Amino acid sequence: MSPHKLRVIPLGGLGEIGKNMMALECGNDIVVIDAGLMFPSEEMLGVDLLIPDISYLLARQKNLRGIVITHGHEDHIGALPYILSQLTPPVYATKFTRELILVELKQRGVRTNAKLNIVSPGSRIKLGNFTIEFFSVCHSIPDSVGLVIHTPLGIVVHSGDFKIDYTPVISEATNFSQLASLGEKGVLLLLSDSTYAELPGYTPSERLVSDTLDRIVSEAKGRVIVTTFASLISRVQQVFDVAVKNGRRVFIIGRSMKEIVSMALKTGYLTAPPNIMCRLDELKTLPHNRVIVLSTGSQGEPTSALVRMANRDPSSRVQIVSGDTVVISATPIPGNETLVSKTTDSLFRQGANVIYDKLAQVHVHGHGSQEELKLLLSLVKPKFFVPVHGEYRHLSLHASLARSMGIPKDNVFVLENGDVLELGRDSGKVVAKTRVGVIYVSGLITGELDGAVLRDRKLLSRDGVVVVTVVVDAESGKLAERPRIITRGFIDAGEEQTLIEKGRDVLIAALEDGRRGFVSRGRLNKPSFVDAKVKDSLSRFFYEQIHRRPIIIPVVVEVKRKS
Amino acid sequence: MSPHKLRVIPLGGLGEIGKNMMALECGNDIVVIDAGLMFPSEEMLGVDLLIPDISYLLARQKNLRGIVITHGHEDHIGALPYILSQLTPPVYATKFTRELILVELKQRGVRTNAKLNIVSPGSRIKLGNFTIEFFSVCHSIPDSVGLVIHTPLGIVVHSGDFKIDYTPVISEATNFSQLASLGEKGVLLLLSDSTYAELPGYTPSERLVSDTLDRIVSEAKGRVIVTTFASLISRVQQVFDVAVKNGRRVFIIGRSMKEIVSMALKTGYLTAPPNIMCRLDELKTLPHNRVIVLSTGSQGEPTSALVRMANRDPSSRVQIVSGDTVVISATPIPGNETLVSKTTDSLFRQGANVIYDKLAQVHVHGHGSQEELKLLLSLVKPKFFVPVHGEYRHLSLHASLARSMGIPKDNVFVLENGDVLELGRDSGKVVAKTRVGVIYVSGLITGELDGAVLRDRKLLSRDGVVVVTVVVDAESGKLAERPRIITRGFIDAGEEQTLIEKGRDVLIAALEDGRRGFVSRGRLNKPSFVDAKVKDSLSRFFYEQIHRRPIIIPVVVEVKRKS
Repeated sequence: MSPHKLRVIPLGGLGEIGKNMMALECGNDIVVIDAGLMFPSEEMLGVDLLIPDISYLLARQKNLRGIVITHGHEDHIGALPYILSQLTPPVYATKFTRELILVELKQRGVRTNAKLNIVSPGSRIKLGNFTIEFFSVCHSIPDSVGLVIHTPLGIVVHSGDFKIDYTPVISEATNFSQLASLGEKGVLLLLSDSTYAELPGYTPSERLVSDTLDRIVSEAKGRVIVTTFASLISRVQQVFDVAVKNGRRVFIIGRSMKEIVSMALKTGYLTAPPNIMCRLDELKTLPHNRVIVLSTGSQGEPTSALVRMANRDPSSRVQIVSGDTVVISATPIPGNETLVSKTTDSLFRQGANVIYDKLAQVHVHGHGSQEELKLLLSLVKPKFFVPVHGEYRHLSLHASLARSMGIPKDNVFVLENGDVLELGRDSGKVVAKTRVGVIYVSGLITGELDGAVLRDRKLLSRDGVVVVTVVVDAESGKLAERPRIITRGFIDAGEEQTLIEKGRDVLIAALEDGRRGFVSRGRLNKPSFVDAKVKDSLSRFFYEQIHRRPIIIPVVVEVKRKS
Repeated sequence: MSPHKLRVIPLGGLGEIGKNMMALECGNDIVVIDAGLMFPSEEMLGVDLLIPDISYLLARQKNLRGIVITHGHEDHIGALPYILSQLTPPVYATKFTRELILVELKQRGVRTNAKLNIVSPGSRIKLGNFTIEFFSVCHSIPDSVGLVIHTPLGIVVHSGDFKIDYTPVISEATNFSQLASLGEKGVLLLLSDSTYAELPGYTPSERLVSDTLDRIVSEAKGRVIVTTFASLISRVQQVFDVAVKNGRRVFIIGRSMKEIVSMALKTGYLTAPPNIMCRLDELKTLPHNRVIVLSTGSQGEPTSALVRMANRDPSSRVQIVSGDTVVISATPIPGNETLVSKTTDSLFRQGANVIYDKLAQVHVHGHGSQEELKLLLSLVKPKFFVPVHGEYRHLSLHASLARSMGIPKDNVFVLENGDVLELGRDSGKVVAKTRVGVIYVSGLITGELDGAVLRDRKLLSRDGVVVVTVVVDAESGKLAERPRIITRGFIDAGEEQTLIEKGRDVLIAALEDGRRGFVSRGRLNKPSFVDAKVKDSLSRFFYEQIHRRPIIIPVVVEVKRKS
């Protein structure tokens, strides 16, 4: 490929929320930004998670110089275990991010020869034709970075996932001067986070949540139970700070919360005075107004600590008591709304006072709203713009923002995964479309999604399965016994008997086929005939009787006389 | 039951969104308010809809004096076809509501002897001990009413579903003076709509949407396609008004929209100048800036007109062209968010400019926010308060509002479906809990939800089914053939062969059972033994190989030699 062109190939993350992965190619060098997973939508029955299709990279392995990770959220690192078992480029990530990558690899049981290098804001690395500098951005997880990528064609800026927070709780404020001076020098391309391109205004500062938490904790007469994302370390820091301020101790419950807090304390991303955390035995003796419980479960996850409390799971080490205040310091990720609502209702039922985002400012987003997106565009002043990290409408709206700020519409590209955008110094266009299949992980299987299997699962989920066994005497051609019918997920035991009996009669009559007398005259020797009759007659029967369409599986056994 | 007590028995609608049904009982008289359906949650696989359990009413049929309907939404009328096929009390509804009930009965193919009486705001009906007056309320469907129910014990006010809109588009503003004077006289009990008890402030007036629609239509250079709920007649009226104002004609697409608009025009709930609507042939010749298309599909319903346009369905009479403005004049009902997002993305992909609630004020809710709920409490000044129409957290928050306004906490009752609340003149308490099963409708079956069937459907939806046929020679006790394995919804054809072959080997080895030699020595005569071996060995095998757990159905056929 020409070194006078730069190719931008999104392999995931565009037109969807999740599995972020962007390839940049120039001459014989490819670098990849992020390698995330995506959770399946409802219809993808039986699928655990989705990862990007890396066929493009596998075909060009020897050109792959490295993978650069912007931050440790699963939609940016979750595909690494699968990818690093097929490719072994060097990986570059900040310290906190690398810790999470190690956890991810361990959880998936993957060992890799790829080297996981640590970088920090200010680091500069050379990957073939590309020189990459890292700069700090504010996001909902520590050690998030954006990238300044020097290419032969010009400078590319990648925002990472970001918001602009002038009063951040733990990270440093975004380095505007660096971005501004780049903009003055001239930036070829900006790739920017479109997640909240729909929302006008600014995303509030993390600091606002401190005020609200402080108010809630100081007013609470009993215990306060706070749930948030375990990786939202700035929020965890605020919980510790508020505990100190209000003379309360913090009990942590939930495996992922305990692990991440422990890691963050060890690596210095979280600071807590000695003794602020308490053990279970201490929790049991402390007065309720001297306690904050920090818990997993902000997304209503069924196995999380909060949900077990909400469900009165007897094995939970903490039970809800009337008078508890529960703070859900998060918003439901799209798709999780029902889980969170159910958990909230269960907590209210137990007499807890539940405070969540609709009722008070107990959470702020980690992504920028329109004004921040415009601010970045205005500082960086790119020649070309590609919105990233969003569903199509987010990308489209972000593109409109860019055009409204003067970037010519021919220089603004709303891409889809697999598009190969080729930029020259003066113009760009999509020159090809590389294949990007839907790669799913289900149990230990990784592969492309099979439409037939999904369709069957959908049918099975609605109306179940009916297994019909027809035993035919091979010589006489007659039925050796009355057909058997077994059902699962179809109708319930009480209803079953009468309908099933009728079904067997209907089947025998269909096999008999009237005057042809296939049953009585003994002509059932063709298994394919029997198979078809079973499916036709019973499909029609079940639909007419009860308007249901189970999957019908005929099992035809021919028995031969032995000599 | 004593005539000196009033019983309040919610049969649906509390702790859930949908299947509203409230019974009031005094002496030998029962009246029922509303009879709605509920759509199933995701986990209720294969279920079409849910209806209230009317066992309580069936056991007291001769006391049931009538069913009163507050408005025509499905969560208030959708269970009538099922109920009126079992009971035939007189039904009372306003004109528009009654039209929708007739449509509902027709669609479900139900004929009933129950009389559907028409009432209007100001009507007074006597049902045994109860005298019921109807008053107009503002909601998102025409002809909505609240109820003033005179009982021997005192006055009960039921808000219906309501908001307070001082500048309504089609209905009349709520009659405050009547409510205020009732409050002065003394109201025993208020039952009030809790849907938006979480939201502070006021719900904006419907009129605001007129302004936004007008702005959008006047600025649009091309066609404007508006989608909203077909029953939201005030919005349809606004679309007509805005069309007239901007010199555009309206083309209606989508069966339910056409039917309801036609009914509303005929019954006078909608007014449109002659010629404002156009036919398809006219649509094809009108300039794009002289057209508004009014369409179904505001909830992303797969068969709706808008979704067919979004999916480029060739059979759709209208196709999206770049430059179209699409206004989604609704918000997604909880559960429908993904459908609506996908539709929005598809429309953007086709070059439409989509405007929805996040971007502009194109929709307002039909339920009151906190200030309106407090206003009603303050006008009515009830002795007792029961929040209705909401999930538990909504009811709980509404109860807190009432307590904050001075109603003693012993007089505020957060009930669940099936609670029997008994009120005397001075106090009340829940005296019993009547059974309320989950009654589902699935195809033509109505019954109680069977846990086993649902669990099986869940397993089938994730990992499918594996049917294993083992044919045993009854005399020799040996396998008559190699076991057969058929799978559906399990793994795909490509993967299948190797794993399935291995599975058959594993099964034969398990049946052989090592030294016991059940296969080689011919001892497979016990079907229950074979059955168990099939399930154990293959469950373990599939889990070890690929971490999947399909439902395994063994079919054991013993073949006998014929003499």
